[in-house]
Amino acid sequence: MKTVTIHAPATIANLVCGFDVLGMALNDPQDIMTISLRDEPGLVIEHSDGYQLPTEPEKNVAGAALLSMLEEAGQGIGFHLIIDKQIKPGSGLGSSAASSAGAVVGANYLLERPFSNEDLVRFAMAGEKLASGVKHADNIAPCIYGGVTLIRSIFPLDIVSLNAPDLYVTVVHPQIEVKTSDARQILRKDVKLKDAIRQWGNIAGLVAGIMKVDYDLIGRSLEDVIIEPVRSILIPGFDAVKKLSKECGALGGGISGSGPSIFMLSREQKVARQVEIVMKDIYTQAGIDFKTYVTTINSGGVRVVGA
Amino acid sequence: MKTVTIHAPATIANLVCGFDVLGMALNDPQDIMTISLRDEPGLVIEHSDGYQLPTEPEKNVAGAALLSMLEEAGQGIGFHLIIDKQIKPGSGLGSSAASSAGAVVGANYLLERPFSNEDLVRFAMAGEKLASGVKHADNIAPCIYGGVTLIRSIFPLDIVSLNAPDLYVTVVHPQIEVKTSDARQILRKDVKLKDAIRQWGNIAGLVAGIMKVDYDLIGRSLEDVIIEPVRSILIPGFDAVKKLSKECGALGGGISGSGPSIFMLSREQKVARQVEIVMKDIYTQAGIDFKTYVTTINSGGVRVVGA
Repeated sequence: MKTVTIHAPATIANLVCGFDVLGMALNDPQDIMTISLRDEPGLVIEHSDGYQLPTEPEKNVAGAALLSMLEEAGQGIGFHLIIDKQIKPGSGLGSSAASSAGAVVGANYLLERPFSNEDLVRFAMAGEKLASGVKHADNIAPCIYGGVTLIRSIFPLDIVSLNAPDLYVTVVHPQIEVKTSDARQILRKDVKLKDAIRQWGNIAGLVAGIMKVDYDLIGRSLEDVIIEPVRSILIPGFDAVKKLSKECGALGGGISGSGPSIFMLSREQKVARQVEIVMKDIYTQAGIDFKTYVTTINSGGVRVVGA
Repeated sequence: MKTVTIHAPATIANLVCGFDVLGMALNDPQDIMTISLRDEPGLVIEHSDGYQLPTEPEKNVAGAALLSMLEEAGQGIGFHLIIDKQIKPGSGLGSSAASSAGAVVGANYLLERPFSNEDLVRFAMAGEKLASGVKHADNIAPCIYGGVTLIRSIFPLDIVSLNAPDLYVTVVHPQIEVKTSDARQILRKDVKLKDAIRQWGNIAGLVAGIMKVDYDLIGRSLEDVIIEPVRSILIPGFDAVKKLSKECGALGGGISGSGPSIFMLSREQKVARQVEIVMKDIYTQAGIDFKTYVTTINSGGVRVVGA
């Protein structure tokens, strides 16, 4: 029986001014999964973590992704998947994307790679549909490709791999619940043209900064005048985290996905560690449980190890 | 008396999905200007073209730009400027920007370059204010810097020079009047969030395509779902020009500035020439006078020659 181990990275979608189109992969946390080819058809899914996620393939995001893959790979194939989830569900760090993306990358490896990365994104999006009701790719794509990725368009799917800037990422996950559906509902359906112009100036600046490796430009472009002002009210401590992190020297940051996690980008590890201290202080004082990470941008995406 | 000759390129502002933030300089047409240091203070402006533009410095866009420069350079200085305008006023090809930018670049040269390019953009914006009532930089910046430029922000001014892609540009100027103020008035003040997202996906794709020199990506990203659908109704023949140009193999294009000129980008000169034939046919059949250009992207901006 062929078995491989998979490391599937956490991801930050809705990268500041890149709502719905820009995402980024992290080196920590990562889900660990093992996947084997079965001797018979069908999917068997187990969890070795304590999150009580469903194991029926149709109700499990990795299962939904694999089922979507098997529609094209052939129904005679079977996989056994064991998931050790390190990325907490509901954290806003792409937990469901890591399961979906990790499963299809591993399965593709076992099948000797009949599918392209773009195919794998398509399959994994079936997992996102199950998780959130919407087929979105801004966690899936960076999870599979690594680095910062642009999803220029979903229909048709158009993924553009950008560079992975040499930056430190400090993340805090305040342990409160923000439902993606709530976070989406509070957004206004219309935006002011002048705000939209400012936003597309910023995303153009952010992409240019990433491609030119111009960290000052990246910093100046990390501004979201449309989504963040609305969504940040769902996250206690957001304004303080942002203000004090920038005072420590962080380039900027924002809400990870639809929250509640918050991330800040820094050029130096020392600054990233200071930002972590600031985050810890804020949530300790607020009496809210939290978890922090100081990590870097993952440039390779899902990794097959121990094959 | 020191005299220099200046070539100031036409520019395309509002580059498709980059409304208000992206502009591009062209190698043809270009305004020709000569500027000399006078022995006494004050500005003397003449035109050697037939456009009957005002010559009083306060009413002339180049004059307004120079006056703005003299506020910082010192009032004791005087210039004599002769403008041979090749870029027709009201064409949507940055005619006023070429006068303003050309004048301040030439004056800066004569003063032995005390000012940075960013300073020169600031001064030249005084000319744009006179021409259109608004201090905008999306013609001025590419005119001075060359290539494709991003104006990430006007206040504070933040100009990002991108590459100059190796593309052919076909331009048609149908000789109808579209007032910038009318073109601005018909825009809705609010836009749908889903359209804004699509637009910022496209501008991110366009910037990435320019930086990665990925012409297919540039082509896919040349889509404007917000401004063009509204403004194109002011330009007879627009839809036909766009549709038939793409059928000839053009990557895409759109309205130049606020019109009425239309531009199309092509990878090959042969295609750019075919696009020109299509444009000529459409306006000949419509009985509308027009002028066409087949040119390339200007990479250097305003040029001081014959010093």
